[in-house]
Amino acid sequence: MTKTTEFQWSPEEKAVAKLAFSTAYNREIDTLVRVVREQATHLSSMDEIWQLHDFLSARRHELDGKYDDRESALIFVFSSLVKDGWLSLDELAGLDSAKVSKIAALTRIL
Amino acid sequence: MTKTTEFQWSPEEKAVAKLAFSTAYNREIDTLVRVVREQATHLSSMDEIWQLHDFLSARRHELDGKYDDRESALIFVFSSLVKDGWLSLDELAGLDSAKVSKIAALTRIL
Repeated sequence: MTKTTEFQWSPEEKAVAKLAFSTAYNREIDTLVRVVREQATHLSSMDEIWQLHDFLSARRHELDGKYDDRESALIFVFSSLVKDGWLSLDELAGLDSAKVSKIAALTRIL
Repeated sequence: MTKTTEFQWSPEEKAVAKLAFSTAYNREIDTLVRVVREQATHLSSMDEIWQLHDFLSARRHELDGKYDDRESALIFVFSSLVKDGWLSLDELAGLDSAKVSKIAALTRIL
């Protein structure tokens, strides 16, 4: 594999990153779908509907900002996803070890 | 009953208006709760979640503006509620006939 720096991604690394990115994204969306369906089954008042609306507004805002697939952002994005449990470090196997170390370190300080 | 003008509401009229207002409001909310629960059972993707979010944003905006219980707004509020089927003119029995006529006329031009 081509040796890369933190801000350079080889084709192999791009493929690993793309898969990890979509894996985490799909996990988080699947969970959100389940949570919303579960919350919706208990709706019975307008207050509860607006609570669901507030919840969705917050999640949308968060998710829009979180899944930034620019290469310059990926180290931070992966750190955040590992920290929040949407991705494991094992799923980043194939990235340059310096990148994985940086991601692991960031998960402890983010 | 005290004779009133369009912008004056007797105690009896206020009671009729309050009941009609809350009746329509509860009907509309009950319907919204059912629609949201129904939509939520079919959620399976993020696009569908954000469609639900957009739907709730629009409904919230509309409902916040629609249920204006200031006396100066009630004629228009009731016209809108009758026009949209949340209230029948019969449920405004007890209001001064001039008010009911005005409401009925507005439902045809709103």
